[in-house]
Amino acid sequence: MTFRNLKIKPGRLLETIHETASSFGAKGIWGPEKTQTGVCRLTLSDLDKQVRDWFINETKQLGCSIKIDEAGSIFATYPGKDNSLPPTAIGSHLDTQPTGGRYDGVYGVLSGLEVLRTLKENQFVPNYPITVINWTNEEGARFPMSIMASSLWSEQVDKKTIYNLKSVTDSEPVTVEHELKRIGYLGDTKASYKHNPIAAHFEIHIEQGPILENEHKEIGIVTGVQAYAWYKVKVSGKASHTGTTPFSARSDALLAASKMIAKGNEIATKLGGLFSVGILDLSPAVVNVIPGDVSFTMDARHVKDETLAQLVEEAKLEFTKISKESGKSISVEFDHIYTSNAVKFHPDCIKCVSDSATQLFGESKVRQITSGAGHDSCATSARVPTSMIFIPSRDGVSHNPEEYSTPEQVENGFQVLLHSVLQYDQLRKDRE
Amino acid sequence: MTFRNLKIKPGRLLETIHETASSFGAKGIWGPEKTQTGVCRLTLSDLDKQVRDWFINETKQLGCSIKIDEAGSIFATYPGKDNSLPPTAIGSHLDTQPTGGRYDGVYGVLSGLEVLRTLKENQFVPNYPITVINWTNEEGARFPMSIMASSLWSEQVDKKTIYNLKSVTDSEPVTVEHELKRIGYLGDTKASYKHNPIAAHFEIHIEQGPILENEHKEIGIVTGVQAYAWYKVKVSGKASHTGTTPFSARSDALLAASKMIAKGNEIATKLGGLFSVGILDLSPAVVNVIPGDVSFTMDARHVKDETLAQLVEEAKLEFTKISKESGKSISVEFDHIYTSNAVKFHPDCIKCVSDSATQLFGESKVRQITSGAGHDSCATSARVPTSMIFIPSRDGVSHNPEEYSTPEQVENGFQVLLHSVLQYDQLRKDRE
Repeated sequence: MTFRNLKIKPGRLLETIHETASSFGAKGIWGPEKTQTGVCRLTLSDLDKQVRDWFINETKQLGCSIKIDEAGSIFATYPGKDNSLPPTAIGSHLDTQPTGGRYDGVYGVLSGLEVLRTLKENQFVPNYPITVINWTNEEGARFPMSIMASSLWSEQVDKKTIYNLKSVTDSEPVTVEHELKRIGYLGDTKASYKHNPIAAHFEIHIEQGPILENEHKEIGIVTGVQAYAWYKVKVSGKASHTGTTPFSARSDALLAASKMIAKGNEIATKLGGLFSVGILDLSPAVVNVIPGDVSFTMDARHVKDETLAQLVEEAKLEFTKISKESGKSISVEFDHIYTSNAVKFHPDCIKCVSDSATQLFGESKVRQITSGAGHDSCATSARVPTSMIFIPSRDGVSHNPEEYSTPEQVENGFQVLLHSVLQYDQLRKDRE
Repeated sequence: MTFRNLKIKPGRLLETIHETASSFGAKGIWGPEKTQTGVCRLTLSDLDKQVRDWFINETKQLGCSIKIDEAGSIFATYPGKDNSLPPTAIGSHLDTQPTGGRYDGVYGVLSGLEVLRTLKENQFVPNYPITVINWTNEEGARFPMSIMASSLWSEQVDKKTIYNLKSVTDSEPVTVEHELKRIGYLGDTKASYKHNPIAAHFEIHIEQGPILENEHKEIGIVTGVQAYAWYKVKVSGKASHTGTTPFSARSDALLAASKMIAKGNEIATKLGGLFSVGILDLSPAVVNVIPGDVSFTMDARHVKDETLAQLVEEAKLEFTKISKESGKSISVEFDHIYTSNAVKFHPDCIKCVSDSATQLFGESKVRQITSGAGHDSCATSARVPTSMIFIPSRDGVSHNPEEYSTPEQVENGFQVLLHSVLQYDQLRKDRE
C-alpha cells in the first residue's frame, strides 16, 4: 500500500478544530453559528493545560509515546518501522492571541493529530517514527517572546531567559517557570535539538495574508520566511503655535514624519520589500500646537537579508535628508529594536510539499510563497530540514476572531501535509 | 502739554509684571533668576481673585471707578474731561494657560494700568475717560471657551452658555457661574456692548510668533486676525499584518494620512495660508499591524475668509483623491469643529498705532502684521473700532514658561500704546 491510497475521513479534522475551540477558550462571537467565534487560549493558562491534557490523551490512544520538555513542549511520537532514528516532526502551537481565531497554530497541531489518526486507521506503519509537536508560547502574547520554546529547542535562546519572562496579561505578573510548574508541564526532556532530535519539521498554517485568496490558489508552498527589521524612529522638531508660526519658521515634526512614512513606502516598493508604521506618538498633541516630537515604529521586510539592510540604509539616509529639509531645528534618530534574518527552507522538504500539492490539486492551484510572518518552523529550520504549507485566509485576516478558511481549504491542506510527511519518510528510507 | 511729552517711568511696567507674577501664580522655573518662571493663573481661581483684588486696589488709588460685569470682567475707568461719553478702552486678560508665561494677556492689562499711572503722574486729563479692562477667561484653559467674556460683551455668545461651562482642570468640575460667585466677581453690570459701551478698544500683546524677531522689528501694527477652520479628519482603512500583507492588498490608513498631511501643507503654501496637524490618533497601534483607522485634526488658516474656504475645499478634494488612490478599502470623512472668520481692525485705530510706532521707532523698525492667534480684540472688533500692538516674542515661544520679551521691547510697546490711545482720544475730540 502506498501512502497515496490512504483512506481519509473528510471533515473530522475540522470537527476536531471546532471541538477544541468550543471546549478550550471560545471567545469573540462574529456570527450566529456556534463555530463562529474566535479563541482566547493564552499560553500556560488553565485553558492551555486543558487542551494539552486532551491532546496527550488523544495521541496516547493512538499508541503514541509522550515527551514533555523543559519548556513544556509536547512531543507525541507515533512509532515507525525503525524507531532507532529520530522522528519526522509535524509541529505548530495550541496557544492563541488574546483575540485569536480558530486556525492560527491550532490547525497545524491538529492536522498532525489527523495524520496520526489516518495512519492508525489505515494500519499504515511509516518507515520512521512521526512526532507531533505542540510548541509552547509561539504567540508571545502572554509572555513577550514569540516562537519561544522552539527557539529554546534550537538553542537560539537560553533557558534562564525564557524561565524568567514575566507575563504581561496578568494583573499580578508571573514567570514562565512558575506557570510551567503550576499547570504541571515543566517536563524533564532537555529542550535541545541535540538531546531530543527530530529528522525534519513540517508545519501547516493559514497564510494570514491575502495572496493565495486573491490569486485563487489552494496551497502555498512556503519556501522561506522574509527577514524583518524593527526600528523606533524619533523625530525632534519644535512645538509652536499653529496660528502664529509661518511655514518658514516651523520645525514641524509631524510633517517631517509624514514625508518619511511616504518615502519609506516608496523605497520598499522600489526594492520589492515591505515598509509599515504601526505605532506613531506625538507631543504635545494639542489642536493648535505644531508637534515638537514624533516617534514612530518602522517595520521593514524583505526576503533577502542584504536587500533588507539596503532598504533600512536608504530609509535612514532619506529620513535624515527629509529632516534637514524640514526646518532648522529638526533632527531624526533611529533606535534598533530587533532584526530577524531571512529563513530559507530546505529543498528536500519544499520538494515533498511541492510534489504533494501539485499531484493533488494541479499546478494552476498552487504557488510558491514566502511567509511574511514568523513561525516555529523558523526556529527548527536553523537545525533540521524544514518547510511549511499555507492554505488561504479569508480576506487575509488573522489574530482576529474572524480568521477563517473554508472546510475545503482546511481539508486540502491536511492532505498535502499527510502526503508531504510520508513522502519525506520515504525519501529518508530511499537514502539509507 | 501734548501727550507726546508725557514723562514716563521706564522699568516700572516690567516691575509690575514681575511683581504680579511672583505674587499670583509663579510657576515653571526656566532659569536661575527669580523672574525666570512662567505663571499659572487659571481663570476664576483663588489666584485670579487675588490679582483682580490687587488690580482694583491699584486702579482705585489712581481715582478710577470700577465696574464688574456679569462675566466678571473688570472695567477700571479713569476720568476724562467729558465723562458723558463712553471711555476709550485698553483691554486684555490676567488669566493664563496652565503652563503660561508672564506676558500673554498680563502685559496688555498692566500696560493699561501703566498708561493710567502715567496720566495721573503727569496730571494729564484726557478728553474722554479711559478704561482698562480685564476680560474674564480669554485663555479658555480652565473653562473650554476662549475669548469668553469679551464675546459675551459683544453679544456673540449668550450668558447661559458661558455660565454653564464646566471646568476641565478641576477633579470635581464646577461651572463658570459657580466660580464667579465663589470668588465674588459676579458683577451687576450687564455684559453687553449696548449697556456698557466703550468707544474703541486697544490691546497690546506679545506676538507669540517669530516674525518680528526674525525681521528685527520692534513693533507690529496689527491690522487684523487671520481666519481659521478646524476639522477632524477620519481616515478608515483596514488593519492587517505588516509581514503578510503585500502593498497591493493594503489599505494603510496611516500612509494615506501621511500623504494628506504633506498635501495639506502644499495647498496652504500655494495659497499663502497655514495648515497644521496637532493631534493624530491611530489604531490598533501595534508594531506589526498596519493601522486601520487614523484620525487627525486639521487647523487651516488664512487672512481672507474666501481663501480659507478655498484651502479647506482643496484639502477635502485632494484628501479624497489620496484616499481613493491608497487602497480599495480606504475612505475619508471630515467633521467640522469650528470656524473663526477673519477680523479686520479699524483704520482709525490702526492709524493711531502706526503713527505712534513710526514716530517713536522709525519706519524701519515697524511692520504691519496679521495676528495668527485670536484675542479679546477679535470680539470687541465686531462692535467698536479696535486694533492691536505686538512686540517681539523670543523664538516665537508662548503658552510656555519661557515666553520672553526683552525689558526694552516691553517698554517700547507700552509707549506705543500710550501714544496710540491718546492720539485716538484726540481724534475723537477733533471729530466732535
